[in-house]
Amino acid sequence: MSTATPAYAQLASTWTRLHHLEHLQSIAGWDHAANMPPKGNEARAAAMAEMAALLHRLRTDPAVGGELQRAEQEPLDELQRANLREMQRQWQAATALPETLVQQQQIAASRCEHAWREQRPANDWAGFVPKLKPVLDLARQEATLLAEKTGQRKYDALMDRFEPGMTCAHVDRVFGEVRQWLPGLIQQVLARQARDDAQQPLRLPVGPFARDKQRALCEQVVRLLGFDFDAGRLDVSTHPFCGGVPEDVRLTTRFSDDEFLTSLMGTIHETGHGRYEQNLPRALLGQPVAQARSMALHESQSLSFEMQLGSHPGFVARLAPLVAAAFGEQPAFAPQNLHRLITRVKPGCIRVDADEVTYPAHVILRYEIERPLIEGEIEVEDIPALWDAKMKELLGVDTRGNFKDGPMQDVHWPSGLFGYFPCYSLGAMYAAQWFATMRRALPDLDARIGAGDLAPVFNWLSENIWSQASRWTTDELARRASGEPLNAAHFKAHLEARYLG
Amino acid sequence: MSTATPAYAQLASTWTRLHHLEHLQSIAGWDHAANMPPKGNEARAAAMAEMAALLHRLRTDPAVGGELQRAEQEPLDELQRANLREMQRQWQAATALPETLVQQQQIAASRCEHAWREQRPANDWAGFVPKLKPVLDLARQEATLLAEKTGQRKYDALMDRFEPGMTCAHVDRVFGEVRQWLPGLIQQVLARQARDDAQQPLRLPVGPFARDKQRALCEQVVRLLGFDFDAGRLDVSTHPFCGGVPEDVRLTTRFSDDEFLTSLMGTIHETGHGRYEQNLPRALLGQPVAQARSMALHESQSLSFEMQLGSHPGFVARLAPLVAAAFGEQPAFAPQNLHRLITRVKPGCIRVDADEVTYPAHVILRYEIERPLIEGEIEVEDIPALWDAKMKELLGVDTRGNFKDGPMQDVHWPSGLFGYFPCYSLGAMYAAQWFATMRRALPDLDARIGAGDLAPVFNWLSENIWSQASRWTTDELARRASGEPLNAAHFKAHLEARYLG
Repeated sequence: MSTATPAYAQLASTWTRLHHLEHLQSIAGWDHAANMPPKGNEARAAAMAEMAALLHRLRTDPAVGGELQRAEQEPLDELQRANLREMQRQWQAATALPETLVQQQQIAASRCEHAWREQRPANDWAGFVPKLKPVLDLARQEATLLAEKTGQRKYDALMDRFEPGMTCAHVDRVFGEVRQWLPGLIQQVLARQARDDAQQPLRLPVGPFARDKQRALCEQVVRLLGFDFDAGRLDVSTHPFCGGVPEDVRLTTRFSDDEFLTSLMGTIHETGHGRYEQNLPRALLGQPVAQARSMALHESQSLSFEMQLGSHPGFVARLAPLVAAAFGEQPAFAPQNLHRLITRVKPGCIRVDADEVTYPAHVILRYEIERPLIEGEIEVEDIPALWDAKMKELLGVDTRGNFKDGPMQDVHWPSGLFGYFPCYSLGAMYAAQWFATMRRALPDLDARIGAGDLAPVFNWLSENIWSQASRWTTDELARRASGEPLNAAHFKAHLEARYLG
Repeated sequence: MSTATPAYAQLASTWTRLHHLEHLQSIAGWDHAANMPPKGNEARAAAMAEMAALLHRLRTDPAVGGELQRAEQEPLDELQRANLREMQRQWQAATALPETLVQQQQIAASRCEHAWREQRPANDWAGFVPKLKPVLDLARQEATLLAEKTGQRKYDALMDRFEPGMTCAHVDRVFGEVRQWLPGLIQQVLARQARDDAQQPLRLPVGPFARDKQRALCEQVVRLLGFDFDAGRLDVSTHPFCGGVPEDVRLTTRFSDDEFLTSLMGTIHETGHGRYEQNLPRALLGQPVAQARSMALHESQSLSFEMQLGSHPGFVARLAPLVAAAFGEQPAFAPQNLHRLITRVKPGCIRVDADEVTYPAHVILRYEIERPLIEGEIEVEDIPALWDAKMKELLGVDTRGNFKDGPMQDVHWPSGLFGYFPCYSLGAMYAAQWFATMRRALPDLDARIGAGDLAPVFNWLSENIWSQASRWTTDELARRASGEPLNAAHFKAHLEARYLG
């Protein structure tokens, strides 16, 4: 490396290189989930571990540290400064962790996940505990190392990997509020639903629903939502996700013969993630400043699509004839009935099956357990009793002895993902905040959605979220987009308007 | 790297690393052909170029040179010696080329290929010449550098990348013989076919043939041929190939609504490649000694499957009821008629559409042009006249002025693949040699194939070819497998027995 080259240019070229290699990692990850035959697993795991180690070495190259310092002194424009800020954040996180810890984490997570896949169906909590303990122990070590380096609180340091700048103090405040009104709201909504059902019985769709027709319907709706199929695909995987790269976004869904709404709404959810990625600014693609802002922001896009837009009565009225065209006319497909199906609220054990009203209860519960878990206030053995108590308190659901649909239901903890859960509900809150902002600017927004004019929504998201990428901190982005930082009141107002209005 | 570690162990670990990274390159390459949406192209190309540069740097690391020398002095067993021999071969080839040349080649090939995709349909030879010239020029530079390093003849140095140990002198001798008898044999076969047609008219299949049924039939036949779908897939791409990695083999085919035999026989062809890869020895996987021996050997497997086995009257008799079950009974699907369709001989312009009798003519023609082209005896402008003369001479086909179905038909030259063409026909010859050997050991082989017992074929190939990988030189492998090195007489005998017998 020549010292004549400005440090910033060196850094930019390093991140471009990372972007190229991460491209292959990402496509191989999608392939793993969507295509790979079972016997390919071992070789793929070895290849991915090799790439992870290579990327870690590139990210922690000591030369980068010096360049980051020198670049601070170089004349940079505002976008370059923002890029440098994000580079520093990534470098700090990467260099805080010794390669041995990263490798140990991969091994422990892989063992725990592997065991979990058999222990969960067997409801084997006692067998699971000794597998989860090493994963937790390594996560605590990571939190400690990161916290020492940054001065953050331990849980904040882990959350920062997904939601930069978010803190326990902030989450406690926001979730604490929601905790006050949520159980009451759920009861009100359930009573309202019961009254509606008594007035007009809910009609259920009658299956089976041919998979090729479900696929065609999903593709039609994804297209309607503006996803560019010349720069992405929709495939099938066991656990739906949005993967690939911004230039080639890979959505996945899964189909079941006897039910089509889960897949359809899940596909709409992933489309939100996909459009964010497809519409990140192109000029600096590959640089940190051009990456999606955070996981809560990402979730705010998928939930803008699935909940704010996809479950909007006006949108559902446009969806209804497409559903009827796909599967034939059924009383269940009448617009109003379809909307009741899509917005059905029902407290249950399983987070991923939860509706938007009860979902925050699942997230608050997990946050209230994993935060003290990471900070050493409780141990793995304490989880079931806390889980049962909180499920009872928040949702009135009895989960005693049901570990598989209780603390063993998520892949997050077995795979070492602590600090992620809050993003789901923060995303739901941001999504409500975005739509409240759009309605202030455009009082006829709901009528336009009902008329099939989705352009105002897409334009607003594109201008305020997608094109901004990581130019601002999350707080600043929210302020510029909506005039205020995160405000959960919009989420409450959205639920009240939709479910009690 | 510690000097205490034996050099051989260091080398083995480097090649394991290459194997892991090439895994991702290979899956991304398959994805490019089978899945990638058009707008993903630029980002994918950049990612693949990054990986190619990375692999080139790893392969040419000066430390490897020292290790190769030191490993020579270490106590190694016979397999390790063979592995070291292959490492040396790969290292010599990689280090002969400066990175700038490799990059220039990629750029020139990419430009020429891109232009060719439009120039070929437009029959635009004049436009194509200036695009091909830089590709040829760089291939000549590569040949010169390799030849200087190895002392080989220039064309031999290029061919060595695909067919180690093969020389022009050898190819001239073998192709020279074939050239003597092939045009006469083709005339005899055509006369024989005409007599057969007069006796009993050939019945043509009546389409359309639903793609899902074609796909199911192909999968059934691929399974019948022993391909392990738990360690591989069959998908669709414009140009069928066998890709992926030995642990996860990706076959591709393409379907057309009005014709099913091309796809079916092409799939059988790729299955031969696929079984070779799936059955390479597992213990040393990732090491050069565990890689497929050469491209002619690879082609000998695909042609063992497509021609020796797949076009065998006994096998076709087993295929016929599967075809009828897929598409409904048709007179064309009677076993004998189906066999006549599959073994139809018809001189034509296009290599990839050629039958096994006329195919060698296409290869000999290309070899006789690209050899003097690389060695500077002729120039790009000389190609059309040579092409026309040789097509007339070998196949009696007039190609004057038809560049698109003449010298512009293959992607090989535009993409800089000089020295590859001979492998196709050498492979056909080896395949005939393997089956002649099997028949000597097992006089009832044909009856067993007719009875649906394919195990003797697979066992022989597994024992003599697949499991041997790169343990021996090609000559030694052929000698151990069949008692003699390459002997084209078996190919002639095969054609005479099948087409004139």
